[in-house]
Amino acid sequence: MMGKYRLFCRGESGNSYKATLMLNLVGADWSPVFVDFFDEPSRSAFRQTTNEMGELPTLELPDGRLISQSGVILSFLSREAGMYSAASQMEQDEVLRWLLFDNHRFTPPFATLRFMIGLRGADESVLTAHLRAQAQAAYEIVDAHLAGREYIVGASPTIADISMAGYLYYEEDARFDRKGFLNIARWADRIKRLPGWKHPYDLMPRAIREE
Amino acid sequence: MMGKYRLFCRGESGNSYKATLMLNLVGADWSPVFVDFFDEPSRSAFRQTTNEMGELPTLELPDGRLISQSGVILSFLSREAGMYSAASQMEQDEVLRWLLFDNHRFTPPFATLRFMIGLRGADESVLTAHLRAQAQAAYEIVDAHLAGREYIVGASPTIADISMAGYLYYEEDARFDRKGFLNIARWADRIKRLPGWKHPYDLMPRAIREE
Repeated sequence: MMGKYRLFCRGESGNSYKATLMLNLVGADWSPVFVDFFDEPSRSAFRQTTNEMGELPTLELPDGRLISQSGVILSFLSREAGMYSAASQMEQDEVLRWLLFDNHRFTPPFATLRFMIGLRGADESVLTAHLRAQAQAAYEIVDAHLAGREYIVGASPTIADISMAGYLYYEEDARFDRKGFLNIARWADRIKRLPGWKHPYDLMPRAIREE
Repeated sequence: MMGKYRLFCRGESGNSYKATLMLNLVGADWSPVFVDFFDEPSRSAFRQTTNEMGELPTLELPDGRLISQSGVILSFLSREAGMYSAASQMEQDEVLRWLLFDNHRFTPPFATLRFMIGLRGADESVLTAHLRAQAQAAYEIVDAHLAGREYIVGASPTIADISMAGYLYYEEDARFDRKGFLNIARWADRIKRLPGWKHPYDLMPRAIREE
């Protein structure tokens, strides 16, 4: 059965998860289209036909229009569904502020570390040390921000929370201790209780299968 | 003479330049407030009092409100001035798409490489090789996108161009050959001809002085 929306994604991609989680939370009719980024021809074909940035996720709308960048997909679905949006222009600026922070500081170092170490078994190097220090700094900022707050912006969950939750539920060992960030842990549990929440591996096909 | 807006910034920061260039292009009344990020006490004090993310640029509005993340500052100033904005909702989605791409893929690897090698004289390592490969991939995507286009989105310059121009005019040698990206070079010249354009070092005080 074809969904109303199609999402090009893969299970290991937390950036894909940001979009799939949102689709589920707003009760959209959607189906995943698996793209195997570990297979170079599939990846090249995807870049040529679907997304010049060569990135997952990419959302195909019912009219065939393609949109990419998880932050754009989240903004679009939030507008369409009238859910997980900000309460005012000022809060909307705050939501964008945390979306941007997520995209350049919160997600990338942890995601790369987890890919290299947790999925690929890489050795430690000056590169993994650099990524770990960057992840540590970003997690400290978010943990401090969440002290005394339920959600990232305002009194209700917004797409800022959904974006920043992208990599929280993967359990591969990236040798980065996230347990000490108590406010982040409590906030992750809060997001997990939203109706429609599912684990990334229950929403999207995986490229890497456990033995 | 105090400007209407105050911008916390430093000359070496291309992310600061995104905001200062925009302030100049829209003809805003503004003044720079220098923050020395190479001085740890100044940096900590800034984080405590001005921006929990500890990042430049941060814009102070006439009413004292502080906003940060260059993409938010650009969006805010574009709304206020009615300039450099998208022509439709669909183009606005495209602008956000490239703002996000800039923040997570186009700016960071080159900026870090230029900081480490161009400003700090670091040696090559697995880390600089990783950054160079990431910069190369991102520059290729932007160069291909600009083939046959004048600007990043639509027929006129938008904040997507201003954001992505953040590091184009710095000349410190990051050992990354940008000259081969001909579409990027032509687009950089085009941005340079916008009325109000100035070089970053002519807009903001510098922390590092040449001998």
